[in-house]
Amino acid sequence: MKKVAVLGFGIVGSGVVEVITESSFKHKTGKELSVKAILDLREFPDSPFAGIITNDFEKIINDDEIDIVVETMGGLSPAFDFTLRALNAGKSVVTSNKELVAKKGAQLLKAARDNNVCYLFEASVGGGIPIIRPLGNCLAANEIKEIMGILNGTTNYILTQMIKNGETFEDALKDAQAKGYAERNPAADIEGVDTCRKIAILSALSYGKQIDSDAIPTEGITKITLKDVEYAESIGYAVKLIGRSKMSGGKIYAKVSPMLLPKSHPLSGVEDVFNAILVHGSATGEVMFYGKGAGKLPTASAVVADCIDIVKHNGTGAPFWEDGGVLTDVSGDPVRYYFRIKADDHLRAENGVRAVFGKVRRIESGDDETVFITPPESETDFAEKAAKLEALFGAQNILGKIQVAD
Amino acid sequence: MKKVAVLGFGIVGSGVVEVITESSFKHKTGKELSVKAILDLREFPDSPFAGIITNDFEKIINDDEIDIVVETMGGLSPAFDFTLRALNAGKSVVTSNKELVAKKGAQLLKAARDNNVCYLFEASVGGGIPIIRPLGNCLAANEIKEIMGILNGTTNYILTQMIKNGETFEDALKDAQAKGYAERNPAADIEGVDTCRKIAILSALSYGKQIDSDAIPTEGITKITLKDVEYAESIGYAVKLIGRSKMSGGKIYAKVSPMLLPKSHPLSGVEDVFNAILVHGSATGEVMFYGKGAGKLPTASAVVADCIDIVKHNGTGAPFWEDGGVLTDVSGDPVRYYFRIKADDHLRAENGVRAVFGKVRRIESGDDETVFITPPESETDFAEKAAKLEALFGAQNILGKIQVAD
Repeated sequence: MKKVAVLGFGIVGSGVVEVITESSFKHKTGKELSVKAILDLREFPDSPFAGIITNDFEKIINDDEIDIVVETMGGLSPAFDFTLRALNAGKSVVTSNKELVAKKGAQLLKAARDNNVCYLFEASVGGGIPIIRPLGNCLAANEIKEIMGILNGTTNYILTQMIKNGETFEDALKDAQAKGYAERNPAADIEGVDTCRKIAILSALSYGKQIDSDAIPTEGITKITLKDVEYAESIGYAVKLIGRSKMSGGKIYAKVSPMLLPKSHPLSGVEDVFNAILVHGSATGEVMFYGKGAGKLPTASAVVADCIDIVKHNGTGAPFWEDGGVLTDVSGDPVRYYFRIKADDHLRAENGVRAVFGKVRRIESGDDETVFITPPESETDFAEKAAKLEALFGAQNILGKIQVAD
Repeated sequence: MKKVAVLGFGIVGSGVVEVITESSFKHKTGKELSVKAILDLREFPDSPFAGIITNDFEKIINDDEIDIVVETMGGLSPAFDFTLRALNAGKSVVTSNKELVAKKGAQLLKAARDNNVCYLFEASVGGGIPIIRPLGNCLAANEIKEIMGILNGTTNYILTQMIKNGETFEDALKDAQAKGYAERNPAADIEGVDTCRKIAILSALSYGKQIDSDAIPTEGITKITLKDVEYAESIGYAVKLIGRSKMSGGKIYAKVSPMLLPKSHPLSGVEDVFNAILVHGSATGEVMFYGKGAGKLPTASAVVADCIDIVKHNGTGAPFWEDGGVLTDVSGDPVRYYFRIKADDHLRAENGVRAVFGKVRRIESGDDETVFITPPESETDFAEKAAKLEALFGAQNILGKIQVAD
């Protein structure tokens, strides 16, 4: 029987307590796990767990009966400090805290290894979708070449509402907030920060090196308008917020941005709050993992699965990576972009576009704008030409610019 | 360093040897695995591995240096015997042999446990898609309620060709054979036997009990005509060969049959040789795993991942189930069916259909047939009414009958 302390009695933390103590789960592995303490600064006098809630971390760190610390506090401080102390005290730590794993993963994984315990984080990416363990273990016989995913349920819900119901971005965001999918301050989701942390974790795990998540080029969906979504739809593409990364000449290319995906792309049909992660392995080819990427019980069940893994495997074979990943800002692959330009004089606009990009794919559009997709170019060449286009039309007249996936 | 013997130097077996010895893999875990012997009755004088190929299983079983036996022979005999002897000799066994796991899983898993070794079979379902380990471990904190999957790439390729290119079943099968997706004797695929073995394995793993795969009602795709596919398409459904199972009142309901899936169903967009498995967990909700379900390297990489798991975890936490699963032939859920009936007299036919099923959903059809979808009924009631319909029109005039998923 392993005793667990849960740090943070919020949505995920209370879900973890619920999953461990609920009856249908107990018949499976109930003898193996029990919750001994819950750390929270708030008081919960009416909770059935009031008796084990404490506001004193020292009680937990000094309790030799506690084998596993579940950290569901979020943020860097004090979560980093508590995690490091728990690991150094010989306790395994299980977390759903993506910011901490993305930023401090290498250091914490090393502390875990040095102390012969585990630092596990299945719940940090994809909620209840098993992705961390399959990437680390099941695909062990593969070189991971590329990862591409819809990693944030809130933004995917917003984009789906725009596509399916013709809602504006603002209305779809309000709708998501009303349904509890988006927080009152939705910046981390809609600016792509959450997706960025998740692709940083998946990349570190796949390529074995910590990367600086702050240095990953990250663009959210706040500039996506209903018009862009409709133009994309008119030529058979869906707009999705995509986190992606690949190994490229020993360096890691990573990026978060909206993309136009053709309807034949496996990620294009992933709708609402669902997440999906496409992994390209050297031997398996493309493998995709799909499910709800968030929510109290899916995330809690991923945390508990990690706890059970510790009980069963006693900490061997946990995922690991080291410091020292180097990012590159170009992948070497040719890229194509969708452009929407404000231009009253159609003919002049077209001549300008053709002068910069050569032959482009025109998209049927209203009178006052020119919409097209560029031919494939290297990222370096593309950046140069995009700058020329801005100079020609004025930056304020470039109304939409979204990368196209093939 | 663990030494491996590979039984059977066919497509999967040679792929395993290739993955273990190839350079890009060796830098990862190359120090941990090497191939010491290959068992095959054939001779391979030109193979670079000719020196370690033997036709004598006794040499392998008696070699104390060999820790892991990879069984890629297929079939029950002598694979069962060799596997049991290897486990009893204290060697772990990794297999891609779905027939053996489906039929003898409980017995072999018990032998493995009794001898403190592993019997692992990630490659038996879904080729390179990680599904066995996520089901066994990652979803450990869930009750698995239901499994539904496209588990056979050959039949999915054939159905996709019928849907996309309007090919008849016979032409699509020839095409699949020409491309190497279907064997010269395609019975195990097109009759649903392969899908049946895979759903038996997934069910045993999920519900903890061995079930008799021979007793699972199994229908292949040989009766699916181009007309059925087109009628389904005309109302927004795709025809897929589906293996599914669920727990129902302490008993296991399992079935293999073609089904009509609405386009909004996550499995309906799975095309060509891809497989996908949808798992409904009590906490995670729906989770889907997607990828190529077969092929030399995907399957070999799943076998090697199992070998690495043995190296890393030393055999703890392997999947397990016991004998004694009880099948039920009805799920308790209401079902709907698509029917295509030969009937020259439309009005008479419609009156007959309505007399049996009440109000049905008519599908626009040619003059000489009546096509419709029944209202939802329990399986017991449906079977009775289907018998009435046969009596009314004659069994030979029921041209198509396919379950509809909602």
